Amino acid sequence: MANVIPPRSGTAFTLARGQRLTVIDPCGEQVADLVAFRADDIDEVISSGRTIDYASRIFLTTGDPLYSNRSNVLLEIVEDTVGRHDFLLTPCSADTFRIIYGDKEPHRGCFGNLAHALKPYGIPPDRIPVAFNVFMNVEVDGSSGAIAVRPPLSRAGDRIVFEAKLDLIIGLTACSALQSNNHAFKPIHYEISS
Amino acid sequence: MANVIPPRSGTAFTLARGQRLTVIDPCGEQVADLVAFRADDIDEVISSGRTIDYASRIFLTTGDPLYSNRSNVLLEIVEDTVGRHDFLLTPCSADTFRIIYGDKEPHRGCFGNLAHALKPYGIPPDRIPVAFNVFMNVEVDGSSGAIAVRPPLSRAGDRIVFEAKLDLIIGLTACSALQSNNHAFKPIHYEISS
Repeated sequence: MANVIPPRSGTAFTLARGQRLTVIDPCGEQVADLVAFRADDIDEVISSGRTIDYASRIFLTTGDPLYSNRSNVLLEIVEDTVGRHDFLLTPCSADTFRIIYGDKEPHRGCFGNLAHALKPYGIPPDRIPVAFNVFMNVEVDGSSGAIAVRPPLSRAGDRIVFEAKLDLIIGLTACSALQSNNHAFKPIHYEISS
Repeated sequence: MANVIPPRSGTAFTLARGQRLTVIDPCGEQVADLVAFRADDIDEVISSGRTIDYASRIFLTTGDPLYSNRSNVLLEIVEDTVGRHDFLLTPCSADTFRIIYGDKEPHRGCFGNLAHALKPYGIPPDRIPVAFNVFMNVEVDGSSGAIAVRPPLSRAGDRIVFEAKLDLIIGLTACSALQSNNHAFKPIHYEISS
């Protein structure tokens, strides 16, 4: 039975070393921002910069490890039915909605949802890094450097599976930004298995 | 008179709001990793994810602001004679040299140099973010996502100028990684003007 993250919300939970986290897009074209911290030392956190450098690739999929700021592997992608995710952008926030969308009373976004969910674990908002944005489809023009947020390639039932390589605290959202999910807010499902 | 950062080393200094920092490549084809923290609250730091999201571009140049994790502008690029820099990768480190180059007794890299230089300012190594890698030429294949570190486009005397939008602590290096600077370790020069 899958856990449900309602539209425009987020959650946090522990994931023990060796456990697997399956993130499912139940409706299609929805994004889930994922962050991971070492459970016994929250100063260690996933790092887009380390991971992309070691992979020599900005797009990650099955077999790719997600490294921490200390160059340890926190998670490995062990299954992926979509093959396109983003690891360049920070979670959408009230500032994102103000700056990019021009919202006057902006939603707190994935950033606010993650900050709220991670607070009981003692993780302050300033520690939230560039997220691994599951199913997020960011096109990059290698010539100009321009990026464009496109609808996810995920269809209903698509999934990605991560295996924890250390005991972790995970933050996970059903994304709150219109561009990311083709202008419809939807839930995200997840399962944890040992 | 320019300050000199010797090959494979780094430094840190304060940059007051309104002051300009000029980073000069004296020999050509050399990289300087730059990080910036808010001087009166080091939990605020430059953010590649926020900056790329707001710019909708991974390559930044004259006129582009560098945002913090709190979506404030810390620096603005006000002059740039090269036009190609990287904001995807973390500073090279002992782990970089171990994992990518296979070194048995690795150099501490820009990461170790920044950690050492930032220590007197109370900034611990875990706080060092994805750097703005001045003059670093990282090609991105928008189709496969593959990245490749190419020789910098900078020639002797090329420069980039940043204006501080808040009081900052800056970390700056002459990069220690062979790939980044076309396999020759060289110095970096910098000047601060009000």
